[in-house]
Amino acid sequence: MPERRDILLRPRLYLGEGLSIGPGKIELLRTLGRVRSISAAARELGMPYKRAWLLIDSLNQGFGRPVAETAIGGKGGGGARLTPLGERLVAAYDRLQTRLNASARDELAAFMALLDEKTDPPR
Amino acid sequence: MPERRDILLRPRLYLGEGLSIGPGKIELLRTLGRVRSISAAARELGMPYKRAWLLIDSLNQGFGRPVAETAIGGKGGGGARLTPLGERLVAAYDRLQTRLNASARDELAAFMALLDEKTDPPR
Repeated sequence: MPERRDILLRPRLYLGEGLSIGPGKIELLRTLGRVRSISAAARELGMPYKRAWLLIDSLNQGFGRPVAETAIGGKGGGGARLTPLGERLVAAYDRLQTRLNASARDELAAFMALLDEKTDPPR
Repeated sequence: MPERRDILLRPRLYLGEGLSIGPGKIELLRTLGRVRSISAAARELGMPYKRAWLLIDSLNQGFGRPVAETAIGGKGGGGARLTPLGERLVAAYDRLQTRLNASARDELAAFMALLDEKTDPPR
């Protein structure tokens, strides 16, 4: 039995009708929430602005209401932030990820074992 | 409480040192195992041959031994197939996915609830 190491498992959810949520969109939302700008978030993640915008728009369309919103004008002008839906989405994803990583230890260990073998056992 | 529907959850595993396994690579392996050809599998999945080749090579490199192999010559010539490692990888992924979808019902229901709300509750 190989030494137990950690595998990071991150879920991708298919919520129906072309709406999916995975690690990429969640990281984008999380970063946007922190830096308060779509373009700054895209830059930090090494992603074209257009792609970041499309990912957020796909979530807005899929949920039928926005996960992020832009402030127009005001002090400092522009900028973006998560809506309550966007914040709850990130929180729900994090809870799910924590649960999954804890609940599938045996199945994850099977992957570690495949990685640690040098050759396949006989069929 | 909204009606319970099914969310499909598929895992992405980060096994360390740049080796990750997610839905895309697993579908590629599964298809390759069935159609016995990298180019036919790529075509079926709407993926450039080069990308399919690179994905398989990244697994071969990551595991330090091949997940797929090509037959050279012989009757019918060429063709590819999964190695025992490749077959076990697909099977281990399927077991993991089944387990995850069963074990996170409450957390998945939280996503369904977000989807079914028409507006956010007051903060």
